[in-house]
Amino acid sequence: MNVEFINPFLSSMLNVMSTMAQMELTPEKPKLKKGEVAMGDVSGLIGMVSEQAKGSLSITYDASLAIATMKGMVGEAPDSVNEEITDLVGEITNMVTGGAKRMLSEKGFEFDMATPVVVSGPDHTIHHKAKGPIVIIPLSSPHGKAYIEFSFDES
Amino acid sequence: MNVEFINPFLSSMLNVMSTMAQMELTPEKPKLKKGEVAMGDVSGLIGMVSEQAKGSLSITYDASLAIATMKGMVGEAPDSVNEEITDLVGEITNMVTGGAKRMLSEKGFEFDMATPVVVSGPDHTIHHKAKGPIVIIPLSSPHGKAYIEFSFDES
Repeated sequence: MNVEFINPFLSSMLNVMSTMAQMELTPEKPKLKKGEVAMGDVSGLIGMVSEQAKGSLSITYDASLAIATMKGMVGEAPDSVNEEITDLVGEITNMVTGGAKRMLSEKGFEFDMATPVVVSGPDHTIHHKAKGPIVIIPLSSPHGKAYIEFSFDES
Repeated sequence: MNVEFINPFLSSMLNVMSTMAQMELTPEKPKLKKGEVAMGDVSGLIGMVSEQAKGSLSITYDASLAIATMKGMVGEAPDSVNEEITDLVGEITNMVTGGAKRMLSEKGFEFDMATPVVVSGPDHTIHHKAKGPIVIIPLSSPHGKAYIEFSFDES
């Protein structure tokens, strides 16, 4: 089940970053995370619940890429991660999940989304504790890296 | 609405920490977070969804308190935050939210819980992006501090 969720999240992420911030990300091959840890400086997280499954999604950014994304969206940005940046990452997480939710609905999964939470702090890592495998999709750009990670239980 | 959620989360947290790890925490006065930031080393987060409201909860620990909690539960613990500790913090987050969910149900809120996510990294901060006020409850112990934080939208 987790594998068929890759495309909705990935295409929604590429679409949001491209249309909102003119930021073209290059996805690397998705992998099932085993001991591997995506490290970053600012992450948006959101919980998702449906009748068939529940889980969590995170999008982790290098600070440099989050700042460049803000610059792409509004023309200017702070030098470091502040509340404007965490607000932006929260909104992007909401938009990416909302886009994926529509695609998942076409596959028969009707998810409710919780509200986003944003973590900031240099070199933190995210550990999804659902029982399913953890899918990690690295994305690269000239401004730094991002990672989409998610995991879902069947409920 | 957020204020009437204080007691379910707080009493569930005190109960879980006391019964599972013989760890007695002293709660300080809950506050509505305004610019204030709880900093910690390992945090459990969970998304919650009901018909009336959706939101997110986090429990943030100093590394020293998370390690002492593990020692209280199983008699031994690693020297620093590793996967055993993040698993434990994920489980505690699940148990605290599950306990609160039962009390919230008695108040007429039927929440579905997403799956927990654990963040590790020294001195990270958590930013709840629901539209409601952010409630923060500091908890102190001889081993370090913990913070419960949550925020809910009315949906």
